[in-house]
Amino acid sequence: MSKNLTSRAEDYSKWYNELVVKADLAENSAVRGCMVIKPYGYAIWEKMQAELDRMFKETGHQNAYFPLFVPKSLFEAEEKNAEGFAKECAIVTHYRLQSDPDKPGKLRVDPEAKLEEELIVRPTSEAIIWNTYKGWVQSYRDLPILINQWANVVRWEMRTRLFLRTAEFLWQEGHTAHETKDEAIAEALQMNNVYATFAENFMAIPVIQGVKTESERFAGAVETYCIEALMQDGKALQAGTSHFLGQNFAKAFDVKFANKEGKQDYVWATSWGVSTRLMGALIMTHSDDKGLVLPPNLAPIQVVIVPIYKSDEQLDAITKVANDIMSQLKQHGVSTKFDNRTTQRPGAKFAQYEMQGVPLRIAIGPKDLENKTVELARRDTLTKEIVALNGLPELVKGLMTEIQDALFNKALTFRNSHITQVHTFDEFKHILENKTGFVSAHWDGTAETEQKIKELTKATIRCIPLDEQNEAGECVFSGKPSQKRVLFAKAY
Amino acid sequence: MSKNLTSRAEDYSKWYNELVVKADLAENSAVRGCMVIKPYGYAIWEKMQAELDRMFKETGHQNAYFPLFVPKSLFEAEEKNAEGFAKECAIVTHYRLQSDPDKPGKLRVDPEAKLEEELIVRPTSEAIIWNTYKGWVQSYRDLPILINQWANVVRWEMRTRLFLRTAEFLWQEGHTAHETKDEAIAEALQMNNVYATFAENFMAIPVIQGVKTESERFAGAVETYCIEALMQDGKALQAGTSHFLGQNFAKAFDVKFANKEGKQDYVWATSWGVSTRLMGALIMTHSDDKGLVLPPNLAPIQVVIVPIYKSDEQLDAITKVANDIMSQLKQHGVSTKFDNRTTQRPGAKFAQYEMQGVPLRIAIGPKDLENKTVELARRDTLTKEIVALNGLPELVKGLMTEIQDALFNKALTFRNSHITQVHTFDEFKHILENKTGFVSAHWDGTAETEQKIKELTKATIRCIPLDEQNEAGECVFSGKPSQKRVLFAKAY
Repeated sequence: MSKNLTSRAEDYSKWYNELVVKADLAENSAVRGCMVIKPYGYAIWEKMQAELDRMFKETGHQNAYFPLFVPKSLFEAEEKNAEGFAKECAIVTHYRLQSDPDKPGKLRVDPEAKLEEELIVRPTSEAIIWNTYKGWVQSYRDLPILINQWANVVRWEMRTRLFLRTAEFLWQEGHTAHETKDEAIAEALQMNNVYATFAENFMAIPVIQGVKTESERFAGAVETYCIEALMQDGKALQAGTSHFLGQNFAKAFDVKFANKEGKQDYVWATSWGVSTRLMGALIMTHSDDKGLVLPPNLAPIQVVIVPIYKSDEQLDAITKVANDIMSQLKQHGVSTKFDNRTTQRPGAKFAQYEMQGVPLRIAIGPKDLENKTVELARRDTLTKEIVALNGLPELVKGLMTEIQDALFNKALTFRNSHITQVHTFDEFKHILENKTGFVSAHWDGTAETEQKIKELTKATIRCIPLDEQNEAGECVFSGKPSQKRVLFAKAY
Repeated sequence: MSKNLTSRAEDYSKWYNELVVKADLAENSAVRGCMVIKPYGYAIWEKMQAELDRMFKETGHQNAYFPLFVPKSLFEAEEKNAEGFAKECAIVTHYRLQSDPDKPGKLRVDPEAKLEEELIVRPTSEAIIWNTYKGWVQSYRDLPILINQWANVVRWEMRTRLFLRTAEFLWQEGHTAHETKDEAIAEALQMNNVYATFAENFMAIPVIQGVKTESERFAGAVETYCIEALMQDGKALQAGTSHFLGQNFAKAFDVKFANKEGKQDYVWATSWGVSTRLMGALIMTHSDDKGLVLPPNLAPIQVVIVPIYKSDEQLDAITKVANDIMSQLKQHGVSTKFDNRTTQRPGAKFAQYEMQGVPLRIAIGPKDLENKTVELARRDTLTKEIVALNGLPELVKGLMTEIQDALFNKALTFRNSHITQVHTFDEFKHILENKTGFVSAHWDGTAETEQKIKELTKATIRCIPLDEQNEAGECVFSGKPSQKRVLFAKAY
């Protein structure tokens, strides 16, 4: 494989696939559709996890763990949910292998070890969790239940892509139970807002908060809220969802409680999740033709120091300076790596850290020792300058914030310049054919129109933005009256 | 269910099962052998995870994630490993459900959606990981690989018990690859030592480091190191294992590298793991007939403050004091909860926190307000005293260390008084019949003797302690010569 990436302009999809592998984030495995998340990719995911977990706990949630398997009878209890996932689930039918009598040294499934009831590998955990909550709730005093789970789930997708769509993925799923409808809706909206705050402040990804149309809703939900981001190729990516489940699961699993008036009522539910798909959003929002670009908040290594030397004496002297810088940066809460490998030349190191998106690179050579300077290179702007050692830690600390903000603003400018209000279906098609992002258009509110538009343009309604104002208009396709614009886009 | 636990003396096993449920740690689920880990239990597991993760990273390891499934052809590649796990594994054979034509509203496995190759839900990940490492290693420069994974695994155990033996459990599994045999052995020993340090310093559980006999070795290992703990009923519990795998997996998956001399050689391997089983060890080491006893390092709540009041004015005054205490304790790094629920009486709260093992309880009543005192109760000793508010944070901070140490020393005294050196098989049997812990005895080194002793006494060789000195003697069963004592016990 060549060291350089295919450029985005040449082949965006190929650029993405190559970047994921060359930046050492993930690779395909021997299991169809399942990925191996490599240490560097996993370190980024760990940073996401830590921040999300902090935000969940701050909003009163606790972690717990529920079984990987869902017995078929529970899986099918909530009909719409079951329908939604039945076509793509991994099913355990047996619990033992035995020696294959026909093939020495090989194993086969023991036909006698068939399970009485098949087990579905969880594609999502509403069923197994609501079956459990049944035992936890008797009275309003037992509510709310505010639980999150970090777990792996499996959806037998036919077309998979690293991080974006994999048969197994890692995620968190919140599952909450409430006394009232209003409280459950407020929870679902709160968690959607947590996701938006996380995406914007931590990942530097601008998102639009909205609500899904019926046809795009989570199977079993009454309402699905979402955050939608825009990738550099003009396609939208659903980065997180939060569902108001009404009493659907409580009814399917008979979860009732005595309310404050002493009457029996079904519990109100929400669920919400984000997954390793966020890694895909991260990559496609910020990266360039040189490789990954990481916002400092998510960078496992925020600063790398590369020595440039011809003699051992020079290396010794540089090492001394580098150690000084590292200890000072550590005090400023900046994670730094000194790459003193002798097996690689500086140029190869530069290329590696560019590919891996390390926000700042400090190079120190003999001239720098003389002048008490270093060369400082920014990954996001690909600019470099010579700066004085004196004051370097403060400068670097400041740049961490500056780069984080700059990445967000750049992505925001791009996103905002790729939302187009259209009035005619010709305009609509024109925008989508040129892959230029979100189209804001009036829609008559019918699933039929939505479907037709999808067939004609491959665009779906990404969401009805939560902050969208009412505005009288006509559906861009049917001409029927409409009160609100919605956002269409092609999507991942 | 009654509020009190069955006592340990009455029925140890029942005591354990009741405690796990009443302390809100875990419960059985709708899936045979799989548990639900409840928030309080999970919070303890999170503390274990955080500390272990820190120790793994400090010793140079990185986290990554590998697929949940192992294709059958990979699973069977390392024969001994496959043999060891074949009899107890969950097998995915299909990837789709469909409407059941015979039962309206029900689903059935779609017979047309059969996988070409069955997938084993990982019981351990050597196979899938070594198949991956094959692509990562060409030269000695690519070594060592030092990777850990936090994951769920499935072993289809027939007799299950919450935390101790469940069909699905959570664990970490380290998988490392090395240039030389010595380096791999050193890694396996290092990680066993990390486990011992963690168990003793963090969980306050004394452990014996040792090596397993051939018949107790991990399937596919050349040598299995372990940490063995002693439970209060005199049974041993294997709390962690670290394996030197030789070149077995490298050969099975053809993982070769060019060594420093330019010759091709197979890579040397280790793997090591601890699991949610540690929760069982924690419970059975420290707890008593009143419920869970937690070492402060593992307590999600280290101090609970319970107000005792008859009027709102009193509660207000107590709340003010409690808030003061909380903010001071926070500064001292002590996690504190103020339980001001109005739905529960103080007595019920006392009972709950006793059951849940909160190390320190502070009760504040009107008298305390007058005298500027509080009542301080220790969970481990079940003692209480009135102490001055002045100096309370420093006192509490000191008690955290004191309790941690006291629990370890208590367990150590118990463990040490339950290791008996025996010289005859009658003594041997006598000790084991009375469930009095480890028996240190000479053994002739044969699997035959080991098996016979197991049949006669149900005791197994837990380990050959790493620090055991050579000592000439005769096998307690066969009378044949022996150079070392080994530790026998009945075990979980």
